[in-house]
Parts: sequence; C-alpha cells; structure tokens
Amino acid sequence: MTHFTSDTAPTTASAWKDGHKGTRETGRDLLTDVSLPAAVIQEAPLAHNLAWMQAFAERHGAKLAPHGKTTMTPALFRRQLEAGAWGITLATLPQCRAAFAEGATRLLLANQLIGRANMAIAVALIRAGAELYVTVDGHDNVAELGEVFDEAGLTLPVLIEVGVAGGRCGCRDDGQIAALARDIAARPGLTLAGLEGYEGVVHGDDPAARIRAYGERLVENLHRLADEGLFGVASPIVTASGSAWYDLIAETFRDGGLEGRFTPVLRPGCYVVHDHGLYREAQRGVLARRPDLHEGLRPALTVYAQVQSLPEPGLAIVALGKRDIGGDRLPEPLVRYREGGRVEAPLSVAGWDVTRQMDQHTFVALPEDAKDVKVGDVIAFGASHPCLTFDKWRLIHLVDDGLTVIDTWETYF
Amino acid sequence: MTHFTSDTAPTTASAWKDGHKGTRETGRDLLTDVSLPAAVIQEAPLAHNLAWMQAFAERHGAKLAPHGKTTMTPALFRRQLEAGAWGITLATLPQCRAAFAEGATRLLLANQLIGRANMAIAVALIRAGAELYVTVDGHDNVAELGEVFDEAGLTLPVLIEVGVAGGRCGCRDDGQIAALARDIAARPGLTLAGLEGYEGVVHGDDPAARIRAYGERLVENLHRLADEGLFGVASPIVTASGSAWYDLIAETFRDGGLEGRFTPVLRPGCYVVHDHGLYREAQRGVLARRPDLHEGLRPALTVYAQVQSLPEPGLAIVALGKRDIGGDRLPEPLVRYREGGRVEAPLSVAGWDVTRQMDQHTFVALPEDAKDVKVGDVIAFGASHPCLTFDKWRLIHLVDDGLTVIDTWETYF
Repeated sequence: MTHFTSDTAPTTASAWKDGHKGTRETGRDLLTDVSLPAAVIQEAPLAHNLAWMQAFAERHGAKLAPHGKTTMTPALFRRQLEAGAWGITLATLPQCRAAFAEGATRLLLANQLIGRANMAIAVALIRAGAELYVTVDGHDNVAELGEVFDEAGLTLPVLIEVGVAGGRCGCRDDGQIAALARDIAARPGLTLAGLEGYEGVVHGDDPAARIRAYGERLVENLHRLADEGLFGVASPIVTASGSAWYDLIAETFRDGGLEGRFTPVLRPGCYVVHDHGLYREAQRGVLARRPDLHEGLRPALTVYAQVQSLPEPGLAIVALGKRDIGGDRLPEPLVRYREGGRVEAPLSVAGWDVTRQMDQHTFVALPEDAKDVKVGDVIAFGASHPCLTFDKWRLIHLVDDGLTVIDTWETYF
Repeated sequence: MTHFTSDTAPTTASAWKDGHKGTRETGRDLLTDVSLPAAVIQEAPLAHNLAWMQAFAERHGAKLAPHGKTTMTPALFRRQLEAGAWGITLATLPQCRAAFAEGATRLLLANQLIGRANMAIAVALIRAGAELYVTVDGHDNVAELGEVFDEAGLTLPVLIEVGVAGGRCGCRDDGQIAALARDIAARPGLTLAGLEGYEGVVHGDDPAARIRAYGERLVENLHRLADEGLFGVASPIVTASGSAWYDLIAETFRDGGLEGRFTPVLRPGCYVVHDHGLYREAQRGVLARRPDLHEGLRPALTVYAQVQSLPEPGLAIVALGKRDIGGDRLPEPLVRYREGGRVEAPLSVAGWDVTRQMDQHTFVALPEDAKDVKVGDVIAFGASHPCLTFDKWRLIHLVDDGLTVIDTWETYF
C-alpha cells in the first residue's frame, strides 16, 4: 500500500539539498505521489493561452514581449518565445540576468535602471550579447546612465516612460517627454529607442476612455519625437499593456499609423496562466468590449493541498498557507479528490468557504452536509493573482488532463 | 567612477544561472556595491537575540527548538544550534528535509504529517538518522501513520496537539487527548512522545490569563497521561510558544513540576531577527509583564532599496515591492543613505509616509521639506512580520555595523 520511491528518499546529505518545497516529480500522479502543497500548471489551458495571446497581438499588428516577472519561469519564457513572442519583459536586472541565462536574448526592462550594481549587471548582459532596453523618466538618471555606458564603450537603448499625474513612474507631461528625448539624443552612451507606458496606473471615471486616451498619447508622442528626428533606432518601439486592458492598448496601436515605421509591443504577463480572481473579471471586460474574440483565456494555475485536520464540526484546516498561494483574495476551492483517487472521480467542494489564512494553514468553514471529508483529501485551489502565487514556489509541476506530472519547472525569483 | 567587478558580471551562460535576486556579495559595501533591493541581517542584534532567547529558555528550565519556518535559512539554524538550541521546529516535511540536509538532526514538525509522499520523506529522514517528532490530533491520521511506519519497520514518535475551540488544529477536549493517547500507545509503528500546542490561536478577553490557562492545561494533561503510563519515551516532551507570548508559556512550564521527568520545549521563531511591527509590539507586552528581563530583542532584519523615480513633487517611487518584503503592514522607512555614501552619514526619512505597494514598487509620500531626495538614494525598510520577508529571498546578506557584507546566506523555501 505504501510506495516509497527512491527519489523522494535520498540517503546522502547532498541529495537532500535540492528539496526546497518540492522535488522533480515527472511521470507521477499528482493525487498519489507528489508532496503537497504543490503549484500546478495544466498543459491544455496553458497551450491555449500561449496561442491565444500571440494571435491577439498579431491580429493587431503588434509584437508580444510577455512580462516575465509574472512567472520568472524560464521554461515558460521558452514556450512564449516558441509561440512567437518578440522578447521578454522584466522588472529588475536580476530578473533580466535569469532570463538571459536561460536563453532569452531580447529583454525589455519595463522599469528605470538604478544603482551602480544593477548598471554593472546591464553592462555585462549587453557585453554577453543581450539586446536590453530600459526605461528612463528623469534627467539625473539619464545623465548617470549616459556616463556609465559611455565609459563602458556601449550604447544603451532607452525608452522614455510616459506617466500620468497621480500614477507611478514616468514623465507627467509631454513637454517633459520632449525635453528628456533631446537630452538623451545629445548624449553619448545612450540612444532613444522608443516610449513605454503602463495603463494599469491610469485611474478615474470611465477607465476605458482614459486608457484609450493614454494609448493615443503614447502614439502622438511617438510621432512627434520621430518627426523631430530624436530616435536613434530604425523602428522605434512603443510599448504598454498589462493583462487587464491590453485590448484597448492594442487598438490604439493598431489605429495609430505605426505600420512600417514603428514597433508596437504588448507586454501582458498574467495571461499565460490567467487567473481565478482579478484577471478573470478583467477578462470578462475584454470579452464584453470585444465580442469578436469569442473565447478568452483559461485559468491554468492552481495550488493543490491536503486537508490536515478536522478538529471540530464544520471546520477543516488545510495545509496551505500565505506562503503557498497569492493573497490578493482568499484562495478559492475548485475541486476535491480523495488522496490516491482518480481524476475522473472528483468530490464536491460546494459550500466550502475559506475564512482565513495563516503562514502555513487555511481555515475552511464546511457546509452542514459535508460529511464525507477526510484528512488527506486533496483540494485544488484557484488563486488571485498569479504573480504572487508563482513567487511562492521554486518548482512548479506541469500536468496533463489526467493530473500526471509531465514536467517540473524551476522558477528564478 | 564605475566599478564593474568580475562577480556581478559573469560572461558564460551557466554563470548567470545562480543569479536569482542577488549574488554572493561578501566583503562588499551595501551602499556601494550590492544589487538592491536586498534583504539584510545585522550581525550585532542577531547575536544579541540568539543569546537572549537561549538564556531566557534556560532560566525557565526549558529547551529551545526555534521555529525554522520563520527563516528557512540553515545558516541561522546552525547559529541557533551553536547557541545551545535543542532542535529545530519546522512546519512541513520539505522544510524538515532542507534542515536535515544542512545538519539539523533533531526535528520537531509542529504540524500533522499528512500525505503519503510526505510520509515517504519522513521515513527517509528517519532512516538517514533524523530524530523526527510529528503532531497528531485525530484517530484516522494516527491509524494511517501507524500502518505506514509499522510497515517501514520504524517507530515514529508523535506528540498529541492540544487545541482550543475555534482555534486551529488540535484536540478540543481532554477526553479526546486521553482517547488518542491510548490509541497511539496501542499501535505498533508509533510511540507517544509528548504534547504540543500553539498559544497563538488562543483568543478572547484577557489573553494573558487565557494563555496561562492553556499552558496549565498542557501541563495537566502531560501529568495525567504520564500517570496512566501512556508515554513511550523516557522524558516526554511538552512544547508550545510562538514569539509573542513565550514568557507565559515558559512560566507555566517552569511552574509545572516538570523537572527531571519531562522535557519542556519552547519554539519561538521570529525572535531571531525580531521585527519592526507586530512582534515589536508583542515584545513590549513581554517586557511589561516581566520587568526582570531588562532589555528585550532587537530588530535585525531590514530590506534595502533605492529611490527609482521622483515623478512629481511629494512622491518617491522606490524599487521595492510586495515580492521583496512582508506585507502584514506597509514597510517602515528607517534610515536613508546616498548611494555610495558612508554609514556614518545617514539622511533623514522623517515624515516619509509609505502609502501603497505594488508587486515591484513602493509609493512614498514625501514631506514638503524633503528637497534633498535623489534617484538612487538607499533606504532601509523595516518589515512586519519576518516570516513573510524571509520567504521573498533566496539569498540574504549578513552585514556588520559598517554595512559591509560579512556573509551571504541561502534560504530554502
């Protein structure tokens, strides 16, 4: 009845070191053989999402540079590049370094490059062959970058970040953008390669109209700087879009007269495994605005965990904590299985109500009629949002529809 | 002026792979040479805390098995064991595996052992020489564990978890405890080794009185089961205590008539680096109850990050996100330095107000008179609580008072 397989049971000290939260479990049955909790991606919806978003970008004449910070899973970067992505977007230099190490060579840092140690990583990446773009939004940073890259004998392509009042980073008005562009164009060590924005920080009444206007502002500034001859590259980049409003950005790029002159780049991240919360709702918005899209993205990421204790009537404690799953919302129980059971025989979680999470535990209020629950029952939980689930794991299992582990992927947070 | 050192700049693909969020930075100046953001432990308060809690336990006649889930940093486990700790407490079998791999051999799983794959890890650990204790709180789990360990030819020492109504795991009443103890004592494959509890789930009016009563209940049950001859070990264990109410538990153990017959074990985790939020407040409570303790614990863990953008008056965006620091509370700016500056010349963060965090960014509202802020300024942030800061990092820097990196430690989440 027990099944102690050799690779969950290393007997030398060094073999234990690879453990972390999981081990490589390829070929195993998730409901029988895998140490839980475990983060799990289902292949079918993943493949659907990869193809769907690539086709979406292409239909709008845009390139795709998926935001890699979501997953920091180079195996997924490879899948995204194989599906046709133009590059990978990242948030920090160590993230760029990890992506480059795994073969992603066109890297878009959708953030300012600050700190001499991070600049040193950028220099080394470019020397090693990376095509690295970074954003800038102020003269001091431009001056420092110009000095560092000129001294290194390199030319760093930079994108001016276009921000909004009350938003995050980025130039607040178009006069700042033009002045910064002239500053960059005049400096050795830098070349102006385009404009960058993030519509996720645009807020207010009628967000769709505001986001369209923001996309149009990006496009207008692009044309204006091109007319002034400030770009130092053949096909300047304009890039924006997270995973909630990408349709509106794609439309403003499609309608912006960019073809043949500019390189529009979309960079959603969460789309790749989608969501059971915030992004599922955002996707309903996309599909309401765009009935031509028919079906949208499919949730592909879940965390499997087991009932740990049934200490009093109506209460299950599940061995799943804040350290295992994203906490924008409490996790959502999707389906339950008996441990060692068959995927064709799911058990109900109807009426299961997650009330609280601690670092390593989840509290579930059970309905009156939940008499069949057993310690060890395996529950698949949906999360929101995926970025904060991925970063809880060093190993993530890819499974087929039968919940057999096809592959185990490393993350690089 | 620039300083591109060889080890931030690997030039072969494989060398990039070790990157994650940081690199080993021993000997470097945190304000000059280290890729930020970075998690940082200061040696002086760390050493103070290690000695302080060990002395506290010994003064109360208790052993210390610090909760390792807080840090999952085996280098800290070694420091704790060197300071006199009896063992290391952990929350999951993969955590036990990681601690054992790094040389911790006495492991207290302060949780139920569920799932056949996790039981397989436990079997392998015991076969490899670990002294592993786990908790139980129900007959089904006891039956399964008995079967698995009997079949493996091993005897698993188990601690009955003592819970409270409306709490987390654990037997709700003393009749259940006695029945479960008899069940365990009758089974091959298991031996009853003691009682376990966690006072952090005891809530209500006058928490100190309730926690004392809870500690006394542990002690009473311990004597009762011993009188009935249900323990299978020479000196049965009684263990409780997190990092907020450990003084009350220690006092009930000290006053419980345990000497020479039982092994009282305290298992706080957060004490080792203490806190700038919840646990700082909890510690004030300890010191108010126990004036004889004079000085208490000192915060030792901070996250250093840089101003990334100053996009509009009164707003700084710092390159520090939810993915870098615990989020029970917004992080607290403690001190600021100019990048490349000297630790003796700190700059003010008076009136700096963290208003919001995103995955990779922190929004700081600056006071009117904060005219000297520059992009690149380095800010040390305090966090609450430490568990959810440690798990954001794979590498943590140990620094001296001059902010030179003494060592870089791996975490094993």
